[in-house]
This record gives sequence, C-alpha cells and structure tokens, in this order.
Amino acid sequence: MDLLATPWGLGRREGDEVAVLDLPHRDVGALVADTGSLAAASTATVLRRVPVAEALATALPPLPAPGTVWGVGLNYRSKARATGREIPAEPILYVSAASSVAGPNGLLPHPSGVTDQLDAEAEIAVVLGRRLYRASEREAWAAVAGVTAGNDLTARDVMKATGTPALAKSFPGCTPLGASVLDARTLADAGSIGVRGSVNGVVHQDDSSADMIWSIPELLARISWYAALEPGDVFLSGTPAGTGQDRGRYLVPGDVVTVEVDGVAPLTTTVSSAATPVAPVARADALPAH
Amino acid sequence: MDLLATPWGLGRREGDEVAVLDLPHRDVGALVADTGSLAAASTATVLRRVPVAEALATALPPLPAPGTVWGVGLNYRSKARATGREIPAEPILYVSAASSVAGPNGLLPHPSGVTDQLDAEAEIAVVLGRRLYRASEREAWAAVAGVTAGNDLTARDVMKATGTPALAKSFPGCTPLGASVLDARTLADAGSIGVRGSVNGVVHQDDSSADMIWSIPELLARISWYAALEPGDVFLSGTPAGTGQDRGRYLVPGDVVTVEVDGVAPLTTTVSSAATPVAPVARADALPAH
Repeated sequence: MDLLATPWGLGRREGDEVAVLDLPHRDVGALVADTGSLAAASTATVLRRVPVAEALATALPPLPAPGTVWGVGLNYRSKARATGREIPAEPILYVSAASSVAGPNGLLPHPSGVTDQLDAEAEIAVVLGRRLYRASEREAWAAVAGVTAGNDLTARDVMKATGTPALAKSFPGCTPLGASVLDARTLADAGSIGVRGSVNGVVHQDDSSADMIWSIPELLARISWYAALEPGDVFLSGTPAGTGQDRGRYLVPGDVVTVEVDGVAPLTTTVSSAATPVAPVARADALPAH
Repeated sequence: MDLLATPWGLGRREGDEVAVLDLPHRDVGALVADTGSLAAASTATVLRRVPVAEALATALPPLPAPGTVWGVGLNYRSKARATGREIPAEPILYVSAASSVAGPNGLLPHPSGVTDQLDAEAEIAVVLGRRLYRASEREAWAAVAGVTAGNDLTARDVMKATGTPALAKSFPGCTPLGASVLDARTLADAGSIGVRGSVNGVVHQDDSSADMIWSIPELLARISWYAALEPGDVFLSGTPAGTGQDRGRYLVPGDVVTVEVDGVAPLTTTVSSAATPVAPVARADALPAH
C-alpha cells in the first residue's frame, strides 16, 4: 500500500485509481505523527476515486515538515567502484537542514552563483514511525513507517570546498521526497528495494538496496546509538553509481530529474533558473581584522 | 526584555519577579513561530507576578521544538589558542539533530558505553524570527528574534572517531537551551555579549562574542548563502577556551554545568547516570560479507 497527499485529502493508490480516504490527516507526515504508522489508511473509508494520473500530476508534498533529515555518504558498492574510492571503514553520516525538503513535481531553483556542479542523487528514503534510541537492527526496521523516493541533490563543488554535507545538500528545494510513501509493512525486508535515477528520461542510476555497504536497519541502529530518531524523521540511505559526478555532467536549468523506488510513485523535479537575486556573502578574505 | 516559559504561561523577567503574560503561547518558540519576534510580550497584559526564584526553579524549555539546529566549530580565538589549532580559513558549520534539544534544570543521562569524554560547551545561541536566504549580515541580525544560553555538549571521543558533529553532539538532552530568551532588539549589536561556563560552581569559560573569529551576523549570512534559515531555527555560535578538552577533565554523573549569557537567566544541567541499558550497535567488523 502506498499513499499520496492529494488536493482532496490523503489517497491510497489502487491500480489506475487513487482512493481518497476519510482521514483527518492532510499528508503522510501528519498521519505518521498522529498514529506512528500508515496502517490506518488501509482500512479507512473511501470518499471518492480519482484517476491516478490526475492525482500524480497534482500531488502535494507527502512529508512537508520532517523533523530531522539524516543521510549517509558513499553507501553503494557500485558508487565506490565508479568513483574509485575505497569502501569506508565507518559510514559517513550527516544531517541536512529540514528547510531543503520539497515535494514531487517541484521546480528547484538552480543555486547559481554558489555552485556549478549541482548533481542529483537517487535514493531510497525511509520515514520513522516511532522513536528509536540505542536500538537493535530488528527494532530499527520495525520502527520504520514508510519508504519513499528521495533526491539528495548535492552541490559537488560546495562539498569539496567546505567538506560540509549540511551546506552542500541544504539548498531550498534540494531534498524532494515522494511522490507516494509505501507502507514499510508491505516489504518483507529492506534488503532488495530497487532504485533508479534518470535525467531528461535517460536512466543513469539503476541499482538495489542489496548493493548497499551498510543496510538501512544497520544504519538506523547506528545513528540511534548516538542520537534519538523521532517519528517523522527521514533517513536518506545513499545513492548508487551513475550520478553526474560519475559522468562529468551536472544539472542545468531545464533538466528534469526523476527518482523511482520500487512500489513508490515516481518523484520528478525540474531544475529552473534561479529566482533569487545574488547577494554578497561573508567571505573569510573580506573579514575585518580583529 | 527576556522571557521564560513558566508553568503558568509565558513570563517576562522584571527584577526579582516574573510577570506572567496574557498570551496564548506556551513557550518562546511558539511565540516566535506565531509572530516572528518577542515584541508582543513587551506590551501583553500581566496576569500575575511570581518570585523570579520560583519561576527559574520551575522553568520549562523555552524552545522545546526548534526546526534545525546549526552550529559552528572553533569560533573563538581563545579556543584556537587553548587547543593550539590555527584559525580556520572557513567556518566549520554543522547541523545537529533537533531531538537533542532540552530545557533548563534538566538531567542529562550520561551516554555511558558510547563516550568517556562528554564535554560542556558554553555558547551564545540565537533564535531566528524570520526566514533568511541569501541574506546580508545586516539582514541576518535583523532576522534574529532572541538570544539565549546554549550548552553544545560534545562527546570528544565520538567526534574524533567519526569526524561527525551530528553524531558527537546529538545525544538526547545534550543541547540544553534557556533558561530565558532575551529579545534581540534589546541588544545594540551581537558584538559584545558575555558568555561564561562553569562546572560545579567553578567558572572555566569566560569570554565575549567580541573574541569570535566570525561574528554571529557573518555566520548567519554565510549559512543563508547555502540553506534557508527558518523561523524557530537555532544557531549555536561556538564556545570559548576552558572546556574540559582544554583541561583534560570530562563530565561524570553528578556534575552540574551552568552556562551564563549576558541578559539571560542561567542555564543549569545536571549530568545523571545512564538510564538506558546498553544494547549492541552495528559495527563495520560485524557486517556479513556481501
């Protein structure tokens, strides 16, 4: 079962239709915050049915206000091979700013003047349903409410210059999530979820969570050893080979990026020209002498 | 003007009394989310007056649910001298998990089994009142709603082992904020705010924002060049010399840590024994061979 936020309310995808449900929650995040899972949607009364194409074209952000957005760098063997990097001894974990989260069908203003190397990262994203602290792997997967498609867009040059994922991955709109959220209980395990990424209709990333260096439950358990994961928090589980970095091609205005995750409605984002005028930024070399 | 969250409602500190205000907001974060500043508290009707000692002893978290918590490493010249590190060429920025935020008078469970080097960091914390994106320094300071005391507690050994501030600084309860929030409009600028940190009554940190390598407005403008800061987001502006790291002494259960920031009620935290049983964590060397 996967759920969409539609203009008419929370909807359950059923073949070529979406069943709009009699639930008080406007989006999947609100349902998870209220109930800790997606289960209530499986038995809710159907108010109306709309064609899936119409629901997808008008889909709203399913997770408009996640608490904390965690991510992991270099977590696919294919990506390590493509970049010639060694398998890391420890996972490279980070937190992005929640203000970067967007929905499906969005326009992403290109952060021109700050990056020339904006790159898409097709990822499997998971949404926590329950709090996790010092949890085992089994407990970690049981606390996951849903799985969705995520695009962990990254400014490669900012990452290189600052070494700071929170800066390179937190531009407004550069963490789209959706279009639907799949009930994690639908999946036997997190070990064989397919993920694909395309730019302008050409598939460049095509892999599965089976190729991950650390599994999703392992990484959630690892994070929970240090920090509590809360209901509504999102974890981005890494991207496979085939990003623009691996191909020497970065995103420009007009590019359309799609992320597909098994069982989840496709997540499409269009890169647009920057709308915000460029203002001067504090630079180290412009600092007053103290 | 500085405000406390009291059991009777939002309160304005006035000498040896706290004026409980006729406002619908339970805490300072709710007031900021609703109005973008602390100004409404300056003219609100006073419902009752309570002794300041009573209000401080029972103070609730003034900012219970910040959006994103940003921080900066090594931002005081005194700290660079104490550690023998060079002044960084660029600020070391990071995001911590919001689940680590706590209030004043709290018990912080020592994350035993994960760290032997839990350390306090007395800091000036600022609370955003308005959204900031690609802002100038002047715009950045104008968007600040309030200033409070923050303790950016850090597991030094975790920081060294993982290189990841989000892991070393995100234990539950290890980002206490409070006890009160000072209206930023009360301050002429952010350039000379005193900050002191003590452990068990002995002052080990005593400095001012005048000693910062990058000023608060510079750092907010810098972050805003990459990520949007949202109302309710918190920025921790770095800690001066005198932390346990500089003295070779780390926190143990029973220690009482206090952070004082000019114009803000003291922020006291007591380290307690770990309440959570220690569970095994996923380790790289325990991974199955793929």
